[in-house]
Amino acid sequence: MDLLDRLSDLLGPAQVLRGAEALAYGREWTGHYVWEPLAVVRPGTTEEVAAVLRLAHQTGTPVVPLGGNTGLNGGTFAPGALMLSLSRMNRIRDLNPAARTVVAEAGVVLETLQDLAAAQGLAFPLSFGAKGSAMVGGFLSTNAGGSNVLRYGSARALCLGLEVVLADGRIWHGLTGLHKDNTGYDLRDLIIGAEGTLGVITAAVLKLVPAPGAYATALVGLDSLSEALALLNTVQSGTGGAVEAFEFMPDRYMARLSRLKPALACPYAPRPVNLLIETATTVPGADPGAALEALLGAAMEAGQIAEAVIAQSASQRRKLWEMRESAAEITFTTPDIVDCDIALPLDRLENFLARMTPALAELDPGAEELVIAHLGDGNIHYTAYPSRPDPVLAQAIRARVSTEAVALGGSFSAEHGVGISKRATMAAHKDPVALQMMAAIKAALDPKGILNPGKVLP
Amino acid sequence: MDLLDRLSDLLGPAQVLRGAEALAYGREWTGHYVWEPLAVVRPGTTEEVAAVLRLAHQTGTPVVPLGGNTGLNGGTFAPGALMLSLSRMNRIRDLNPAARTVVAEAGVVLETLQDLAAAQGLAFPLSFGAKGSAMVGGFLSTNAGGSNVLRYGSARALCLGLEVVLADGRIWHGLTGLHKDNTGYDLRDLIIGAEGTLGVITAAVLKLVPAPGAYATALVGLDSLSEALALLNTVQSGTGGAVEAFEFMPDRYMARLSRLKPALACPYAPRPVNLLIETATTVPGADPGAALEALLGAAMEAGQIAEAVIAQSASQRRKLWEMRESAAEITFTTPDIVDCDIALPLDRLENFLARMTPALAELDPGAEELVIAHLGDGNIHYTAYPSRPDPVLAQAIRARVSTEAVALGGSFSAEHGVGISKRATMAAHKDPVALQMMAAIKAALDPKGILNPGKVLP
Repeated sequence: MDLLDRLSDLLGPAQVLRGAEALAYGREWTGHYVWEPLAVVRPGTTEEVAAVLRLAHQTGTPVVPLGGNTGLNGGTFAPGALMLSLSRMNRIRDLNPAARTVVAEAGVVLETLQDLAAAQGLAFPLSFGAKGSAMVGGFLSTNAGGSNVLRYGSARALCLGLEVVLADGRIWHGLTGLHKDNTGYDLRDLIIGAEGTLGVITAAVLKLVPAPGAYATALVGLDSLSEALALLNTVQSGTGGAVEAFEFMPDRYMARLSRLKPALACPYAPRPVNLLIETATTVPGADPGAALEALLGAAMEAGQIAEAVIAQSASQRRKLWEMRESAAEITFTTPDIVDCDIALPLDRLENFLARMTPALAELDPGAEELVIAHLGDGNIHYTAYPSRPDPVLAQAIRARVSTEAVALGGSFSAEHGVGISKRATMAAHKDPVALQMMAAIKAALDPKGILNPGKVLP
Repeated sequence: MDLLDRLSDLLGPAQVLRGAEALAYGREWTGHYVWEPLAVVRPGTTEEVAAVLRLAHQTGTPVVPLGGNTGLNGGTFAPGALMLSLSRMNRIRDLNPAARTVVAEAGVVLETLQDLAAAQGLAFPLSFGAKGSAMVGGFLSTNAGGSNVLRYGSARALCLGLEVVLADGRIWHGLTGLHKDNTGYDLRDLIIGAEGTLGVITAAVLKLVPAPGAYATALVGLDSLSEALALLNTVQSGTGGAVEAFEFMPDRYMARLSRLKPALACPYAPRPVNLLIETATTVPGADPGAALEALLGAAMEAGQIAEAVIAQSASQRRKLWEMRESAAEITFTTPDIVDCDIALPLDRLENFLARMTPALAELDPGAEELVIAHLGDGNIHYTAYPSRPDPVLAQAIRARVSTEAVALGGSFSAEHGVGISKRATMAAHKDPVALQMMAAIKAALDPKGILNPGKVLP
């Protein structure tokens, strides 16, 4: 009996998709990657996932885990592979408001988690554009970031325990809800961010936090990124660490925004550095707006900032956020862009831009650049618009961005992961001993190399 | 030429201690472990550490890394092994107040780091009793905890990057100061907490935080741990997450304290649950005392708490902390105690004590128990005083504590690690697949098993 028939016996024929049905899964949402999978299986329990992997391991069949398909680097590219969809594993196994934990299976959608927490007066603070599709297994496997990392950390910081099926079908039962546990190696953080190459996450214990009752949101104009960093530190200290977002939009971003979306034009003549700052508090009756206004007022008197607009209503707050959230729309205006996701030490964003702007002009005098950054995390989304569609030029620009970032102690992938599209960059820039350690760990946990082959490792 | 002569050539004879000089290192400070090392080497640079490990690897010599020797589980037990002291690697390589990072070598003492941060108006918030001796390499290798974990996390949460020498002398250069970096497996968190079995930490990038300008400290009496957890959540929300410590001292602890240290007697008739609560703020001019008083006043009106004393001066604050910090002194009154360090999900401490108290009475009707807990972390230090010195009984009590903790989803080691003293407990209670994963990773990174042999893995 062939593998697919055995899988049909195991899961029921309805959960083994072949042919055209499978082909519908053979595409990243970006359209950058298209492939023909061997089949798509949809197990409904951890035991079924384990049985699928046992069979795949016996037969040496490559397996690519799939969540909500919202990745950006071809992490689910699966030509000829068995795609393992976790979408049917979408149960909440436990919800404990007192301990502020939730145990969710891999197929639970991020927005569902957020809604569930909100119904308890709590929050699950991970959030990004794809929240309506992204799933627990995927956002943990990619260690997703988003707009609240500054305050709450990336996905890794929000996870207490995992249940994982290994390449050969063994199940690691690590679903603890403990805040402290020094019993051996940190396997949880090893699996998180491994993009499905070391094991398949089937469930997780996630942290919930108190939901803020009030927000304060401001748009601030100033002249340099070093002053912006000083302001971040001032606002952090001055609010007791209540900064939820600290987003950088340079004048060039503002110009593009007002051209493409005039209703969202900057309310003042844009400065070199424009910041969307949001603070929030869980303290009942507290007024974060007054606190932020006082801090910004003092900064203005000290000449630290030149412009400040504080949202006076929910709709004004919404409008400020739309300026920031239009980034994808005003960035992806042509298919020929070079979009990069890099991280730098907090005090080196200025150095990076001071090096990259002339470097781009040198590579392509007609190119334009667009920058938007999670400044509080040191995370820059850097986009170049070459003057002509030319894959060699595009590759040269991409390589230069990585080189300049790494030269300043930065990273060529801040929150989007590696997948297949950044494997060559891994080979060029990752510490060689780190790569050797990764390869050794991969071989130790997946000796046949069946889990998401061709991803992450160069 | 024998190994020690080659090491002398490499490091200079003064940095290779033999005989009586080496013997002085052959002792854990607790006195529980005493041994005769092969020798003690004290390299002064990362390259020297690498050269030592290359030689050890070639010759199959076991190597035990040593920091400040403040561990509790025999993690530096090194009979016949080369002890590798990091004490000479005590340089601060970089201090960046704007980016709030410090790059410290493995031999820098914790208190030195704290003082360095304080001089910048910042804090390195890891702290525990042994801060005057404990070193960077040691507190990272054991993922140390302490009294501020609730707010700032354990050592792991305070580290951004590492420099590590592997078993064969290769150097992983991972000293990044990045807050986001999704380029492959999380090797940093794998090395942290591995107790020197996977590599030798030679330097780390550590996070600094703004130093609180004001504190509020209270002692609160109430009747149950479930009410205490509700109070923790109320105070967290009500202060915007400003709780620095939330420590549980039961009536029995208070009774022992007033007997052994009458000056530190509880200022009210002790309740079943007594909490030391401390909040702090970085907001200039803010009054955390008034905020805490309002929260506790409301809790008292609602019948949630029965007693509350708020420190009105620095000396009153000091006295409340002395009540908590006398724990070691009033616990270690006889060598025949059974002291355990366990963690539980936050809402299960009550269940644990409800099971363990009768279990202890069943094992030894004349035994007494003493409990003190970092309640906000779910971390209980549970001590039993058997009625007679009897190693079999002591072992039975210890095993029962682990069994009851694990049965409730807890851990048998919260912040003290495994070393050699908890290896049997690892074998009994750790998930078997997790143990297999650990063994595979150990074999992949240290195939000859020379790094801290006999530790952590059963």
